Amino acid sequence: MNHQQLFEQIKIKRSFLCVGLDTDILKIPKHLTDISDPVFSFNKEIIDATVEFSVAYKPNLAFYESLGWQGWQSLEKTVRYVREKYPDIFLIADAKRGDIGNTSNLYARAFFEKLDFDAITVAPYMGEDSVKPFIAYPEKWIALLALTSNKGASDFQFLKDEKSGDQLFESVLKTSQTWGTAENMMYVVGATKAEKIKKIREIVPNHFLLVPGIGAQGGSLHEVAVNGLNSRCGLLVNSSREIIYASEEADFAEKAGEAAKKVQQEMEKLLSAANLI
Amino acid sequence: MNHQQLFEQIKIKRSFLCVGLDTDILKIPKHLTDISDPVFSFNKEIIDATVEFSVAYKPNLAFYESLGWQGWQSLEKTVRYVREKYPDIFLIADAKRGDIGNTSNLYARAFFEKLDFDAITVAPYMGEDSVKPFIAYPEKWIALLALTSNKGASDFQFLKDEKSGDQLFESVLKTSQTWGTAENMMYVVGATKAEKIKKIREIVPNHFLLVPGIGAQGGSLHEVAVNGLNSRCGLLVNSSREIIYASEEADFAEKAGEAAKKVQQEMEKLLSAANLI
Repeated sequence: MNHQQLFEQIKIKRSFLCVGLDTDILKIPKHLTDISDPVFSFNKEIIDATVEFSVAYKPNLAFYESLGWQGWQSLEKTVRYVREKYPDIFLIADAKRGDIGNTSNLYARAFFEKLDFDAITVAPYMGEDSVKPFIAYPEKWIALLALTSNKGASDFQFLKDEKSGDQLFESVLKTSQTWGTAENMMYVVGATKAEKIKKIREIVPNHFLLVPGIGAQGGSLHEVAVNGLNSRCGLLVNSSREIIYASEEADFAEKAGEAAKKVQQEMEKLLSAANLI
Repeated sequence: MNHQQLFEQIKIKRSFLCVGLDTDILKIPKHLTDISDPVFSFNKEIIDATVEFSVAYKPNLAFYESLGWQGWQSLEKTVRYVREKYPDIFLIADAKRGDIGNTSNLYARAFFEKLDFDAITVAPYMGEDSVKPFIAYPEKWIALLALTSNKGASDFQFLKDEKSGDQLFESVLKTSQTWGTAENMMYVVGATKAEKIKKIREIVPNHFLLVPGIGAQGGSLHEVAVNGLNSRCGLLVNSSREIIYASEEADFAEKAGEAAKKVQQEMEKLLSAANLI
């Protein structure tokens, strides 16, 4: 899916919500754990209940890998289900990969050929050749970690380069812009640092920002939108736990739909206020 | 496996060789591709032929993931095979993971519980809470990326912090030492930067260094040893392609064994010269 198509979906759904499929087998409602693939069944119900309000889904690989090859199988089934039933959904593998060029090539094969994701999150530490193999695919994207939402972000991401005066996350934003374009790169920007989003938007005015951390991690949607929206929206805001675990009972899907709808309604107001819809 | 036990194995084998199981389905000898699990069969033969000369094996996850869940199954079988047949081998998941604490917990579950690896490579960008869940496991290790061997290493790893004067990879080495100890952390240091190993050894005198890049990536074993050996060896040097693809014919395992033996013999001389055996 390309940039314009993603923006069209945002306008149709009146939402820039990404639902994080951080599906933890330990939190799945009891009545699903007896069937043959509880993780896939859970995802399927969550997707059906929230797809009206969301433009993207983002499974975090850790949750699937913690179940070994069966977890990968659940992930493959989830991706196939979305591709067949909801072809206009943008699918992000939250995998935070990155390796030497030769090896990143194989990760790209894994996530863009074997699995038909639209985008993958990538860590920037290893630099250009670890990123390029992913954006060599037409209409596929990377979401490069810039400023993350966790406590450990402050260990290295704020170190200030003596020559340029830029903090590390700013160097990542500036340097990586020569690797790809706003058509195939987005940036992961933690919403707990909403005051930083304005600064980031100045460095990358045209790129999509993938913003985790609304809700459990403490970011405010309003602040993010005011500082982050651009002329083609330019935001995907992720929510995971607040939606998929809105209830841990039999009504989990219904409650997830309600939680997603609530976020969508807020987003509709923000898009409207910015004259985007 | 703990630090002392790993050192004992190094003395017994007279080797600090780690064989990289970067098993690419496209490079596997023809006669293996007809059987039910060619990747596992290839690994099994490579391990049997090289285990006399190696203390560690390091599958790179990208190669397995490029085959989807079947690839993860081959990986699980490989780990189980080593654990059952060669319990004294040190197993490293070259996965370059790292996520917010909550999620790194699940990666730890994947690689240390579901799969019984001894160590996992982790990218430092997200800081302390992305690393800690891994070293919370007794006798399990992380190998933190410090200075990588690829061209892109120079994009960010050499940026100099204005306050401390340290380059980013030095900040990673210094800061991360407060997170764990030489008993549960090692550092990935690219051998193509052998002149840097001396400097790194000064910062982390007691830690194991995991050194990729001997051979295809251009590092010299002699330079690495002279600058990197410490009183308990402190080095694991990885070789992948030069060993596992020493031949792409029916004699691949035999040739892999010969290639590993050659490296082991060189390592024996270096260990002896350093009075470690």
